[in-house]
Amino acid sequence: MSASLNSTPTYENEEGTLDFKLLNAVNDRYGGVVVEVTLAMDSALFASLLRALIARWQHQGKRGVWIKLPIQHVNLVEAAVKEGCWYHHAEPNYLMLVCWIPQGPHTLPANASHRIGIGAFVMNENREVLVVQENIGRFRGTGVWKFPTGVVNEGEDLCAAAVREVKEETAIDTRFIEVLAFRQSHKVFFEKSDIFFLCLLEPLSSEIQKQESEIEAAKWMPFEEYAAQPFVQKHELFKCSVDICLAKKDGNYSGFSPVPTSTAFSDEMNYMYFNTHDLNGHHS
Amino acid sequence: MSASLNSTPTYENEEGTLDFKLLNAVNDRYGGVVVEVTLAMDSALFASLLRALIARWQHQGKRGVWIKLPIQHVNLVEAAVKEGCWYHHAEPNYLMLVCWIPQGPHTLPANASHRIGIGAFVMNENREVLVVQENIGRFRGTGVWKFPTGVVNEGEDLCAAAVREVKEETAIDTRFIEVLAFRQSHKVFFEKSDIFFLCLLEPLSSEIQKQESEIEAAKWMPFEEYAAQPFVQKHELFKCSVDICLAKKDGNYSGFSPVPTSTAFSDEMNYMYFNTHDLNGHHS
Repeated sequence: MSASLNSTPTYENEEGTLDFKLLNAVNDRYGGVVVEVTLAMDSALFASLLRALIARWQHQGKRGVWIKLPIQHVNLVEAAVKEGCWYHHAEPNYLMLVCWIPQGPHTLPANASHRIGIGAFVMNENREVLVVQENIGRFRGTGVWKFPTGVVNEGEDLCAAAVREVKEETAIDTRFIEVLAFRQSHKVFFEKSDIFFLCLLEPLSSEIQKQESEIEAAKWMPFEEYAAQPFVQKHELFKCSVDICLAKKDGNYSGFSPVPTSTAFSDEMNYMYFNTHDLNGHHS
Repeated sequence: MSASLNSTPTYENEEGTLDFKLLNAVNDRYGGVVVEVTLAMDSALFASLLRALIARWQHQGKRGVWIKLPIQHVNLVEAAVKEGCWYHHAEPNYLMLVCWIPQGPHTLPANASHRIGIGAFVMNENREVLVVQENIGRFRGTGVWKFPTGVVNEGEDLCAAAVREVKEETAIDTRFIEVLAFRQSHKVFFEKSDIFFLCLLEPLSSEIQKQESEIEAAKWMPFEEYAAQPFVQKHELFKCSVDICLAKKDGNYSGFSPVPTSTAFSDEMNYMYFNTHDLNGHHS
């Protein structure tokens, strides 16, 4: 491929012959440029365009250059790397490359480093807790009954994710109350980390219909029976969660409640989670 | 490139002529395979190896196939995609591709979706708070004094990240006390989300030495002066944080404290964060 690059000097030095509109470049608010490739093109042409544009951006004092390559344009990845780009992040359908034009170390934002998970503590008025057995993953075939759990999607509020996962796995409708605790763990998949939020939800319905694909069984189980499982007793993390759930139900435990809050830099509302009970001065 | 692939039938049908050791494939515990490419090779050879191996893995009933391509082997990305792989995630120095061998939807783990940030509330015995002015990013040139903030690295405990960031930005040594609140926000960069933890730290030293590269100025500022800044007053998020900090200092506010906890599936200790004050029954 480098041979073919070297054999296309026409593009390299005669900026006038290149149609820069082929690459849709938009300025960002950090002094950089975002290019999203939407047209199929030959990798030699792409390399020439990119080289000429980078020279121009350097002249203009631009900083970070982002190049979003949809997976159907995978033929352009090698050329982008050869022009000095590296990987920033990737999703199933695209790869984001970056390069940094100024001298010195870059100040580009770090890639996403964590996956966010939730576990839902849902207890009914009979002190029964909503539990499932999974038929995929680590708990498959173990016979362990566990709280419904799941992964928070990109762009999804964790309080919404908890309600969604319970609904998906058991068909139970719930209302989110608060985050009781969270745990951070590392190297969950490859080098990535994970934060798992233990959440309290209030059931709004009672009839269980289990999900077919990932759930082996789902039921309401007396809390004491859940807590007595050897697996739960054996592992500090689960035992500690049981203590927290009991302190919530039978004691005065305060977790963090979601409060919609406007943000400094956009019109969007974001949830802030904090101890509203203590903040409102209800404690002794 | 597809032309050259089609012109190498030798590799395609005669498994015996392929040296599979060229690709270092290791079984994972989910019934899948992880391939880390460490040798430079021609993309046509790589495509042939991969095609033959995928056929073999299909026969063996394997599930997910992970292919880690260091950036120096960028010439192999296109071939992997043509053999049916897609992107899972990327870091500056490598791209992780996956393919799913069984019929039906895949159960591969989701990519990291969130960046984790921390802000450090550090107050000394004179009710002065540690604040900085940044010379990069959104606050550059605004004159706003803010708490030290930073991004939690992959694999780093957030309580350690808070101590590290304060040290890096101001040279102040601190001890982590607790998480006071957190906020989730979305589309922070491209489609990725962010969780920001407001943390209470106790200062262990007092002499400030500001970081050269990212910090314009750093000082101890009377808390009331910090809180009175128009920027802080104007934005709900900052105002709410001020209220929480005051409730902590002058009231009975309980946040979440880190407690090392053993995990179910490994020997590692992870921090679990919860309201230890309430759990220990100190409340009314």
